Amino acid sequence: MKNYSISGFPEWLPRQKQIEQSILDQIREQFELCGYVPVETRAIEPLDVLLHKGDDKEIYVLKRLHDNTDSTEADRFGLHFDLTVPFARYVQQHESKLVFPFKRYQIQKVWRGERKQEGRYREFYQCDLDVIAKDKLPLYFEAELPFMVMNIWQKLAFPRLLMKLSNRKVLQGFYQGLGVTDIISVLRILDKLAKVGPEQVAKLLSDELALPAVVIEACLSLAEIRSNSRSFMEEVESLGVKSELLNQGLAEMQTVVQTLDSMGMQGTYEVDFSIARGLDYYTGTVYEAYMSDHQHLGAVCSGGRYDKLARVGQHNLPGVGLSLGITRILGYFFNQPDQKFLADHLVEQRLQVLVVLPDESDRVAALKIACKLRARGIGADVYHQAQSFGKQMRQAEKRGIPYVWFMQEQGSDQVKHLASGTQTEADAEHWVP
Amino acid sequence: MKNYSISGFPEWLPRQKQIEQSILDQIREQFELCGYVPVETRAIEPLDVLLHKGDDKEIYVLKRLHDNTDSTEADRFGLHFDLTVPFARYVQQHESKLVFPFKRYQIQKVWRGERKQEGRYREFYQCDLDVIAKDKLPLYFEAELPFMVMNIWQKLAFPRLLMKLSNRKVLQGFYQGLGVTDIISVLRILDKLAKVGPEQVAKLLSDELALPAVVIEACLSLAEIRSNSRSFMEEVESLGVKSELLNQGLAEMQTVVQTLDSMGMQGTYEVDFSIARGLDYYTGTVYEAYMSDHQHLGAVCSGGRYDKLARVGQHNLPGVGLSLGITRILGYFFNQPDQKFLADHLVEQRLQVLVVLPDESDRVAALKIACKLRARGIGADVYHQAQSFGKQMRQAEKRGIPYVWFMQEQGSDQVKHLASGTQTEADAEHWVP
Repeated sequence: MKNYSISGFPEWLPRQKQIEQSILDQIREQFELCGYVPVETRAIEPLDVLLHKGDDKEIYVLKRLHDNTDSTEADRFGLHFDLTVPFARYVQQHESKLVFPFKRYQIQKVWRGERKQEGRYREFYQCDLDVIAKDKLPLYFEAELPFMVMNIWQKLAFPRLLMKLSNRKVLQGFYQGLGVTDIISVLRILDKLAKVGPEQVAKLLSDELALPAVVIEACLSLAEIRSNSRSFMEEVESLGVKSELLNQGLAEMQTVVQTLDSMGMQGTYEVDFSIARGLDYYTGTVYEAYMSDHQHLGAVCSGGRYDKLARVGQHNLPGVGLSLGITRILGYFFNQPDQKFLADHLVEQRLQVLVVLPDESDRVAALKIACKLRARGIGADVYHQAQSFGKQMRQAEKRGIPYVWFMQEQGSDQVKHLASGTQTEADAEHWVP
Repeated sequence: MKNYSISGFPEWLPRQKQIEQSILDQIREQFELCGYVPVETRAIEPLDVLLHKGDDKEIYVLKRLHDNTDSTEADRFGLHFDLTVPFARYVQQHESKLVFPFKRYQIQKVWRGERKQEGRYREFYQCDLDVIAKDKLPLYFEAELPFMVMNIWQKLAFPRLLMKLSNRKVLQGFYQGLGVTDIISVLRILDKLAKVGPEQVAKLLSDELALPAVVIEACLSLAEIRSNSRSFMEEVESLGVKSELLNQGLAEMQTVVQTLDSMGMQGTYEVDFSIARGLDYYTGTVYEAYMSDHQHLGAVCSGGRYDKLARVGQHNLPGVGLSLGITRILGYFFNQPDQKFLADHLVEQRLQVLVVLPDESDRVAALKIACKLRARGIGADVYHQAQSFGKQMRQAEKRGIPYVWFMQEQGSDQVKHLASGTQTEADAEHWVP
């Protein structure tokens, strides 16, 4: 048989899609309860918007099939690779119609033309939460976002999450204080720490940037700090590096950590200066969250503060955002059937009843029963053709429908609960599952 | 200021997105209550799948930005232009894991590289409902789909919809009976009837296909038939054309119309043989629905029966589907603010309370109140910084938040309803809006 699947473009079976939908609905409900409003942006952006920031992303560009010219209008557009860049554009475009600080959520697919790799998708859902302010964005929001994510995680009963915090000002200020000039290259190399280990990073820093051993050692020492309280302050200070930017970054971190503690978030976060989110557009706090018992899955949530993605006239529009990678999480757990957290209770089973069709002439009567049930919020379907009752019940089982309904010409209708075999009298106006 | 909008790619403001989301949620709920399960397909398909059927669609093909070769893997893929073709592929691919007749709904965006035109979009949502069976699909489903759409329409209190019905076998059988050989060309020309009128169509049929006047007249007479009952049978028969295929089509139409009548659908449909859905993949019943008071908007719902889109091994997989063009409807009504049907009652306002922040030191206390309300399903946010109460209340008004909450150091908290000015005592464990 023909192979229709396309590598990196996952598709779920209906039951899996129901689970995904249920999770997305619950996330959406929480976002809305907390005052975030929905935004949906078009799937494409002009290439200059996409390329402005985030230069390491593989972008899919569009071309009209029947367009044979080399440079066309459509050629200037690409599919978005994240939701932050389109959102920053959206806020600039509609600035006069929005209330600031503008708190929005956005749940959409994004596309990345990445190389094939285990657990990497080319099409996947992101659930983004961002706050963009006019001119000044209170540091408070840098604590609100992890707080939101942690609450959602608990609500969904997902496996334990550890939110790792770092700060680009701390990293850049630290390197400045060490006299490093090519800071972007240092960030880029240190970003590989988790993948290649400290020796290899030290070698790259030495070979490529010719940094002195003492500088390399300090960089690695900073990256080794782990702290679940304000103790990171002393640990950084003990490395003896000083700069204005470093101080600013540390003060920001301290405020964020203090705020998290005041919100009762102790134990859910960890300061980790190996987190750099190297080539992205972040300027302050950065986040990367891992499921503690499934670390090899990689970061399932990431984001940070960005001060330079958007401006309107004289106004700068600083923002902070976090993004949940729902597809990666689901893809992983769909392949691990023993995982408890994708249990059936996540899905609201709307379809409860299959009305048995004894004869084609009974269809209207059967449909009336189904309609009465539906009107009361009980999902009901009528079997598609007159066949043996056995066949009809087997279809109900295959579709996961818990009850079958037997119409009676005389006396009350009967409802059978398939799992238990219990059969009871019922009428469509009053019966409940 | 820079113009960021892209012609044909609509974007809504948050309030509009809330309305769209609410409508999509209600549609989804109805689909599920009636036994349809969700499917979501990837946004792209191999070009040979897309081009197999539906040859008149402008397809956007993908190319990786950093890929400079002429013929690449990515070049073989395009964005889907509808949800029927991807769904037929999905059913073939996953056939062994599905229960037939397979009833699915699918709500996703589709993309068409069409020429710019008023009311035409290049990116838009489709809400599709399809049933695909193995080998034999009961005609009943050709009545179920309009029944589903009509019920949803009523539920949403959308303006009155008229479902137009036709049948490709009737049209093709009729032309065959007239001795026409190039049936596809006749369909293509007759498809223009609504746009260019009967004289122009007669001219085209004569000029391009050299059809005799009597044949042209018969074709136009068939296209003029309108019937809201089984009377169409006599009207077609009175034209004196006969063929096997025509009889088969008329028998199908009669069954569908009878079934609709038995479901109480009189007055919601109209038989109209000018509906051909010319170049599409349909083989039997075809649908086009118009809002009676907004006909110039064009068809907002269309579809039909397709027997040849999918097969697996020895099994043919016939299907029937209907597609709602939600974006077109919303785009139209968002530009007509006097339209009642987009009234606020469609949107569940989850965010009810803004907790006033007297001082930064009160933030944790304020957040606790918000969390208590959220836990009871009442949306609540805390103002982002300590400012005058006046400013805080004005922001609540701008965000459409009906209540503001004042914490009190001594005595009970106070809640003010902004619209009425009423202020009452409240505590976060018991208060309801």
